[in-house]
Amino acid sequence: MTLFFQKELDKMKKHILSLGAMVEERLRLAIQAIADGDLQIAESVIKLDYEIDEKEVEVEEECLKILALYQPVAVDLRFIVAVIKINNDLERIADEAVNIAERVANITGKQDDVFRFDYSHMASIVEDMLKKSLDALVNLDVDLAFKVVTLDDDVDDLHANAYDLIKQEMLKSPEQAGSLINLYLISRHLERIADHATNIAEEVIYLVEGEIVRHGNY
Amino acid sequence: MTLFFQKELDKMKKHILSLGAMVEERLRLAIQAIADGDLQIAESVIKLDYEIDEKEVEVEEECLKILALYQPVAVDLRFIVAVIKINNDLERIADEAVNIAERVANITGKQDDVFRFDYSHMASIVEDMLKKSLDALVNLDVDLAFKVVTLDDDVDDLHANAYDLIKQEMLKSPEQAGSLINLYLISRHLERIADHATNIAEEVIYLVEGEIVRHGNY
Repeated sequence: MTLFFQKELDKMKKHILSLGAMVEERLRLAIQAIADGDLQIAESVIKLDYEIDEKEVEVEEECLKILALYQPVAVDLRFIVAVIKINNDLERIADEAVNIAERVANITGKQDDVFRFDYSHMASIVEDMLKKSLDALVNLDVDLAFKVVTLDDDVDDLHANAYDLIKQEMLKSPEQAGSLINLYLISRHLERIADHATNIAEEVIYLVEGEIVRHGNY
Repeated sequence: MTLFFQKELDKMKKHILSLGAMVEERLRLAIQAIADGDLQIAESVIKLDYEIDEKEVEVEEECLKILALYQPVAVDLRFIVAVIKINNDLERIADEAVNIAERVANITGKQDDVFRFDYSHMASIVEDMLKKSLDALVNLDVDLAFKVVTLDDDVDDLHANAYDLIKQEMLKSPEQAGSLINLYLISRHLERIADHATNIAEEVIYLVEGEIVRHGNY
């Protein structure tokens, strides 16, 4: 491996982790917007999504450049392909944060007596999953990656509970159907973020163990 | 370009298109399950999803093999990276078809007097988008790819209409909240399939025009 190649690889790692940190921050803001019903925060998440999009394009271009210039093989090749896919997942997590922010904007300030749903437990697990999946990537830590995969089941359960609770509320207060659908979808967006964090973790496991663990074959 | 490389590339193209055809068939079945409320078809879509998962893994392994063995550059490199991403989108479209099948299973046979929603227009556009996006890939047809991108707006509008209609119905019949949420989510799954078809089309445009058209920068 040449010194130039190692430098490019380090640069690429730095960029994907900086995208990861940006996406973590957007998720944090979206969750804060839910908790506080803060329209300004919600709008900033929506408005600044173009920054994430630009960064995603930049990381992918860099991966293509490295593939073309250095023609890496084996572990290095696998790593770069994993980064291309993780890059995609990170951008989609940011999209889901935008979706959450839009739902918050839809329901905030409309009714004072609206039913409130407590997402704090689910949100903290989802944030933890994203953090752990990125840490697993940095340290190629398979044990940590498996933890993320396990946590995904908890989020699925919490999402199913949210569905039941919100459905009950709809029976009681059908006039709030619009807001309640938005509340349900916030739960669904959080659940999808957990799915993307799981994808990242599974890529890390695949990377380290060299076999496909996706699609639940473990 | 060696003869061996060309052969491998042809083989990979054949495999991604065969995955595409499988996914088109699953979407067709899921849509038929909605239209006929056919539980058996819905269950077959769910049960056979592992075939798609296996095929996805196979295509990705093939891409990695070609990258490692032939170290392609320029257009060929770009094409293989595009296939890795399109492969991912196809597998996710099949997942959404499974989601639709699960929703159909949730609502079928529960109530006879349940509100029915007509997805036929939306479904036919979504099927058309998937078909066009795969044709655009085969023929590297940028015009066709742009048509897919345009159709995505129609699907978004139809999805917004579905939301309004189903919300109104929920006001009238709150006791049907569970079924109505499932109906809404079928619309949402169709809309997400349209998003994935758009991703495929945008990859084709990117491939041919060599610049990033994702994130609506066109």
